Amino acid sequence: MVVTIIGIGLIGGSLALSLRQTDIASRIIGLDRNPENQQKALELGLVDEVTDDLASAVHRSDLVVVAVPMDAMLTVLPQVLALVDKQVVIDVGSTKQQLLEAIKDNPKRGRFVAVHPMAGTEYSGPEAAIPHLFDGKTLVICDAESSDADAVALVESVFQQLPMRLVYLGATEHDVHTAYVSHISHITSFALALTVLEKEKEEQRIFELASGGFESTVRLAKSSAAMWVPIFRQNRTNVLDVLDEHLRQLQHMRDLIAQENYPAVTDLIHQANLIRKILK
Amino acid sequence: MVVTIIGIGLIGGSLALSLRQTDIASRIIGLDRNPENQQKALELGLVDEVTDDLASAVHRSDLVVVAVPMDAMLTVLPQVLALVDKQVVIDVGSTKQQLLEAIKDNPKRGRFVAVHPMAGTEYSGPEAAIPHLFDGKTLVICDAESSDADAVALVESVFQQLPMRLVYLGATEHDVHTAYVSHISHITSFALALTVLEKEKEEQRIFELASGGFESTVRLAKSSAAMWVPIFRQNRTNVLDVLDEHLRQLQHMRDLIAQENYPAVTDLIHQANLIRKILK
Repeated sequence: MVVTIIGIGLIGGSLALSLRQTDIASRIIGLDRNPENQQKALELGLVDEVTDDLASAVHRSDLVVVAVPMDAMLTVLPQVLALVDKQVVIDVGSTKQQLLEAIKDNPKRGRFVAVHPMAGTEYSGPEAAIPHLFDGKTLVICDAESSDADAVALVESVFQQLPMRLVYLGATEHDVHTAYVSHISHITSFALALTVLEKEKEEQRIFELASGGFESTVRLAKSSAAMWVPIFRQNRTNVLDVLDEHLRQLQHMRDLIAQENYPAVTDLIHQANLIRKILK
Repeated sequence: MVVTIIGIGLIGGSLALSLRQTDIASRIIGLDRNPENQQKALELGLVDEVTDDLASAVHRSDLVVVAVPMDAMLTVLPQVLALVDKQVVIDVGSTKQQLLEAIKDNPKRGRFVAVHPMAGTEYSGPEAAIPHLFDGKTLVICDAESSDADAVALVESVFQQLPMRLVYLGATEHDVHTAYVSHISHITSFALALTVLEKEKEEQRIFELASGGFESTVRLAKSSAAMWVPIFRQNRTNVLDVLDEHLRQLQHMRDLIAQENYPAVTDLIHQANLIRKILK
């Protein structure tokens, strides 16, 4: 099939690589607002052609992937849907409620399937695209009942071939769960980087002493503001709810250490260790 | 040389593997308070023999490694030093000030070299031992001027052969820096696990939706309380100082999101991104 990818960054570019490698896409057309990204996407072989002609790209495609930050998504998705006839359109965004609310009365709503591949890295742009990013990961399909059955079937078929595991959620549920298992991790990582950069003025020491543990908790702090601020904005209520709980947990641990109540600190760590049951 | 390792867990066991693989150790004697760990260390080939006879082990050794949790360290290290003649003794502990203060008047102080290999994983026990854990990592040598020159020279030679990069710090400095680049990461990870376990009652959803970002920020929450509570206790002042700064940073980010001041959130993320300069 012919696939158009709008936004050829980490996610759009990695999806292009996967769709080509699995022979799902016979031709990939790329669009990116940034001419440099267009050029790099061509050079890196992520896409077969780039264009600024959205209408032509959509008309020549079977599947249109909108992989832009969530603020731009609110503008771009309706533009794409206005051009759609039989094509299937997907987003790959991290928040769903506001987007699905915004297009709920769109006459082409049925051609759109809201999906969220639970995969990524802290890097962005076409150079960040990597093969096999999605292999074995989870794809969330949101509010599938609002999409046409044939559109859902096409999306299921494409992503099962990557292969990805499919999970079906309502948009409200999706936004709550991702606040816990994705959005909060980015906030704590940004705050941890700020803490260390603020207080540890000897950067050479951070460099010398940082080991795997520090790197793994702080690596998400390299993530792009252009991607994450719109996510925090669109999922603000859930993010604040989780963040408030996290602040309570941290403050509680802080107070127990301040009070030298080490048996209680031990109990809390034993409780935290239960995450072993869930993450291998 | 003959090496005795007291405490054959993640660090002691991994060091045994490295000392054997580099042919630095011709014989490794293991001691562990836990008979099961002794048995496993033998089965896994981490050590050539196990014994409960500390005096005999020390007398037959050139190098004695004390790799026990920091609370036990305060008891075990003086017991070892009381048995030492020409042998060199090292700890591999994560906090230094309290330990070095406790032994500062020990008549065998010169035979002891305080070191901290900046490497580890979230697992513990002899089965957690892995080859090459220390390759290319940093070894901090603390207060080297309080150790005999020949003892420091032997330790430098051993760890340079692993190979590790040597960094020299005072104990006070060491404890401040490790609060930033190691201890705080563990506290935020424990608190993040507690947050998610407390609020996300649908464990199946965590399992399905958790991707690399969540796993990397939360993996340290699998770490052992037996190891970490004594570290928080002995480095309490620095840990509280860093934790208070982290709470301020998190609260600030929370307030900006609550106030919908997204330009300021963007600025904070750009500041946090500066960690890219330090961590590749």
